[in-house]
Amino acid sequence: MKQRILDCTLRDGGLVNRFRFSDEFVRALYKANLEAGIDYMEFGYKSSEDQFDRESFGKWKFCREEDIRDIVGDHHTPMKISVMADVGRTDYRKDIIDRKDSVIDMIRIATYGNTIDEALEMTEYCAEKGYETSVNIMAISNNTREELSDILDKLGRSPADAIYLVDSYGSFYPEQIRSLAAFYVEKTAGTGKQIGIHAHNNQQLAFANTIEAVNSGISLIDVTVNGMGRGAGNCSTEQLLGYFREREEELPILEFIEKYMLPLKKDGVVWGYDIPYLLTGQGRRHPSSAIQFMQEKKTAYSKLYYSLQMGMKA
Amino acid sequence: MKQRILDCTLRDGGLVNRFRFSDEFVRALYKANLEAGIDYMEFGYKSSEDQFDRESFGKWKFCREEDIRDIVGDHHTPMKISVMADVGRTDYRKDIIDRKDSVIDMIRIATYGNTIDEALEMTEYCAEKGYETSVNIMAISNNTREELSDILDKLGRSPADAIYLVDSYGSFYPEQIRSLAAFYVEKTAGTGKQIGIHAHNNQQLAFANTIEAVNSGISLIDVTVNGMGRGAGNCSTEQLLGYFREREEELPILEFIEKYMLPLKKDGVVWGYDIPYLLTGQGRRHPSSAIQFMQEKKTAYSKLYYSLQMGMKA
Repeated sequence: MKQRILDCTLRDGGLVNRFRFSDEFVRALYKANLEAGIDYMEFGYKSSEDQFDRESFGKWKFCREEDIRDIVGDHHTPMKISVMADVGRTDYRKDIIDRKDSVIDMIRIATYGNTIDEALEMTEYCAEKGYETSVNIMAISNNTREELSDILDKLGRSPADAIYLVDSYGSFYPEQIRSLAAFYVEKTAGTGKQIGIHAHNNQQLAFANTIEAVNSGISLIDVTVNGMGRGAGNCSTEQLLGYFREREEELPILEFIEKYMLPLKKDGVVWGYDIPYLLTGQGRRHPSSAIQFMQEKKTAYSKLYYSLQMGMKA
Repeated sequence: MKQRILDCTLRDGGLVNRFRFSDEFVRALYKANLEAGIDYMEFGYKSSEDQFDRESFGKWKFCREEDIRDIVGDHHTPMKISVMADVGRTDYRKDIIDRKDSVIDMIRIATYGNTIDEALEMTEYCAEKGYETSVNIMAISNNTREELSDILDKLGRSPADAIYLVDSYGSFYPEQIRSLAAFYVEKTAGTGKQIGIHAHNNQQLAFANTIEAVNSGISLIDVTVNGMGRGAGNCSTEQLLGYFREREEELPILEFIEKYMLPLKKDGVVWGYDIPYLLTGQGRRHPSSAIQFMQEKKTAYSKLYYSLQMGMKA
């Protein structure tokens, strides 16, 4: 299947700064992605405004139609627009309108293995509304191969256009990613589903795992500019473009980093590989304890290591 | 062959701080490596004191016998001691004494492809003196497969105990490392040579490339604590130990990082992945221009990108 790149800087990066990006930042990112030949740009989450206070977050946690249109105008471009909708955190029957009236092209539905039936319901709803859909199964290091097999069978029969292999904890090694990627591809063979990869950089393996997945038949590829994303962040756009695109396409991304990402970092927004994330990745644990450890500016790595083994607070 | 881990923190890390480590740092590293079950600890270079001013560098650029003994005392431990000797920069006939009188176990000879004959002369000399030897062929991205084949043939007939696959520019992708590793192993089959891997982190692939090399039959593995090394640094000890050793062995390394590496960083010693190294890695270029760019605190990544393409100064 044709390889497609999806930029989720605002969505995964938004987890770092509560989605508070300036309009100028978002416009410049849109322009840089267009120039770099990115296939999809994800603007953020479609979160329930009943469940989450609009004042406590930037607008990209909610991705109202009018907010996206403010950035993209008529949007006569080849780049498609996606948003993510978490199972249980989206008023999808209210907030996801007919695609013909929407600026959004694709809804990505994020779910854990045990909420797959709700995810399927959302997928059917969104597909009926006319959207491309993907289902992103999170935290699969907690699922057995048998559970995963059942989930993929269900998704194979669903209207989802794409299914994502997600390394939520940044815990997988390349050989595991190759094996999982081959499993996703094989299980969905003949269904026409595109398989995607969303990697995290806890063990500095996001880029390696992404290209190994691509070489194992995965063709929908998540990246973020400068790797911006929760905790250790993601596979970076500039790494991937250097690997398999014409080198020229990397330039607008480099210029964006210089002009927009460096000021963000200077203002104290922090992400990227560090020892605490390595430890949660090695322990197959959610990065939340590492994120807290970093926020509290702790450095007692050995204590964090023990606490992860014992299930205690660092 | 039995997997062996070689710590070269002082040697590759010494390139970052001109080998100016405190004795306390070196003693603590020695202790941490012992506790972590590291097989070899490299103390630095055996550089010519005629060519290099002893006052301009810390003592680990020269690795005098008495300086190592000051740290290790009687050294009745299972961990072996290595030093690196660069072709053309070592007075080996003067400075490398009989092994029976030396605290050193292994001499690692670093060479470019075009100085392989000098490297072989040094290898024979050191082997006759009783040392274990390795030959580390640098910058092989500049060599054709045929040239590499000839070099490996020569090394297969030499007394070298080990031969290193070195990714000097951090430019190789995992699939290239797998192919090269298989080539090194196959070319030296039956000679009893151990094959080693020395990776650099320019594209955040040092760890991934190291474990891919190991899974392709390479068994002598270079690491540095916290990845300390020139430019983007190396595969880190803590990453590797998490991957394939008992988890307990990671603890002394984590404690060393907290107590000794963090203060070093706080004092302004800088290494680790950043965009400029990615660009030299993608361009298969020596990291020197990236190092200078970083030292001058420049951020015009697009200019560096152009300059690398044009062979100009950034």
